[in-house]
Amino acid sequence: MSESVELIPGNTLITATPQEGRELAIKMARLIIKVTQPDAEVRGRLRGIYAEDAAMLIAVGQTVATEFAVIAAANNYWR
Amino acid sequence: MSESVELIPGNTLITATPQEGRELAIKMARLIIKVTQPDAEVRGRLRGIYAEDAAMLIAVGQTVATEFAVIAAANNYWR
Amino acid sequence: MSESVELIPGNTLITATPQEGRELAIKMARLIIKVTQPDAEVRGRLRGIYAEDAAMLIAVGQTVATEFAVIAAANNYWR
Amino acid sequence: MSESVELIPGNTLITATPQEGRELAIKMARLIIKVTQPDAEVRGRLRGIYAEDAAMLIAVGQTVATEFAVIAAANNYWR
Amino acid sequence: MSESVELIPGNTLITATPQEGRELAIKMARLIIKVTQPDAEVRGRLRGIYAEDAAMLIAVGQTVATEFAVIAAANNYWR
Amino acid sequence: MSESVELIPGNTLITATPQEGRELAIKMARLIIKVTQPDAEVRGRLRGIYAEDAAMLIAVGQTVATEFAVIAAANNYWR
Repeated sequence: MSESVELIPGNTLITATPQEGRELAIKMARLIIKVTQPDAEVRGRLRGIYAEDAAMLIAVGQTVATEFAVIAAANNYWR
Repeated sequence: MSESVELIPGNTLITATPQEGRELAIKMARLIIKVTQPDAEVRGRLRGIYAEDAAMLIAVGQTVATEFAVIAAANNYWR
Repeated sequence: MSESVELIPGNTLITATPQEGRELAIKMARLIIKVTQPDAEVRGRLRGIYAEDAAMLIAVGQTVATEFAVIAAANNYWR
Repeated sequence: MSESVELIPGNTLITATPQEGRELAIKMARLIIKVTQPDAEVRGRLRGIYAEDAAMLIAVGQTVATEFAVIAAANNYWR
Repeated sequence: MSESVELIPGNTLITATPQEGRELAIKMARLIIKVTQPDAEVRGRLRGIYAEDAAMLIAVGQTVATEFAVIAAANNYWR
Repeated sequence: MSESVELIPGNTLITATPQEGRELAIKMARLIIKVTQPDAEVRGRLRGIYAEDAAMLIAVGQTVATEFAVIAAANNYWR
């Protein structure tokens, strides 16, 4: 892994809206997979696997929820 | 995934009641599955699988609980 | 899923005691399973499976612990 | 499940020391398994399974850690 | 399990440095495994299994991360 | 495991940016795997396994997210 890979788009956890915070959570989760498996072709093949697997889809949701918890706190929940 | 997909209905974490907060948690969890697997037919097939699988049902509960933790904090626990 | 299903008995996270908070956590976890699998007969069959499976029992405990964390914070830990 | 089962010994999250907090976390995790599987003989058999299974032992640790996080916060980390 | 087993070395979550906090998290995770499986020989055998299993190593990391979250909060993040 | 292994580079959770916080989370997650499996050759072999396994990649993401939550809180979310 090259540490110079962008891991957080914009290098901030602050977003204008909850929707944008959710999009950031999805991107952050994907970028961790990208640094762990840098080969785009392999990632594409694996995406085809987890997108068709109920248990893995649920696990993706769990990870995004964990990422989002941090982003939501950073934004004081957009209250 | 199109980032323009609605990920948080109403684009807010604030709800009137705990019940509505819980409903939002369920919707948010489902919308992540939807962006990860955009094909409605595939999702319908997978739903039939996890709704009959004890381990996956428990995992769904874990994910909803994680989403709900954020929503509850955002609403100051509706105290 | 009908969104009108009761997801939080009493529609509040506030309980008189930690014991009642724990009971609420168990109920909330079960109600998520209920909305995901509305068929009572199927749920009864699946309960027989996870109640006899060590890994699933541990996973149930993990989910209840996550639900309880929110309830405990809502009640300021009954301090 | 009978809701009258004791789920939190002493009905409080407050303990004198971190060690006692850790013991409470273990007990709370076990009591959830007990209400989910009330048959002591079955629980004894399942305990023999997970105590010999590396993955399940790790999962037990994850659950106790989650329970302990709540207890530690309740006690202001015994600072 | 004997409740008199030491579960937190020094009976405190306070450490001088983040490094020591991390070491404490590792020890706390291991001590839960120890009370769940008191037989040292069995634990040694299981350690040989999870140290060679990618999925279990990741799960160990998840558990240590959860333990560390509590220790870090207890120490106000050593700011 | 030798407790003298470096578990947190720089022995601090404070970073200049979210990007650096994310890099630290990845390193901390890897260092736990390193102390659990000190043999570099075995780790290299296992990395080849989890980098090609969709479920394990998702689990890596979950662990990094948990580590990052602590780092983000330590840095007051770089607000």
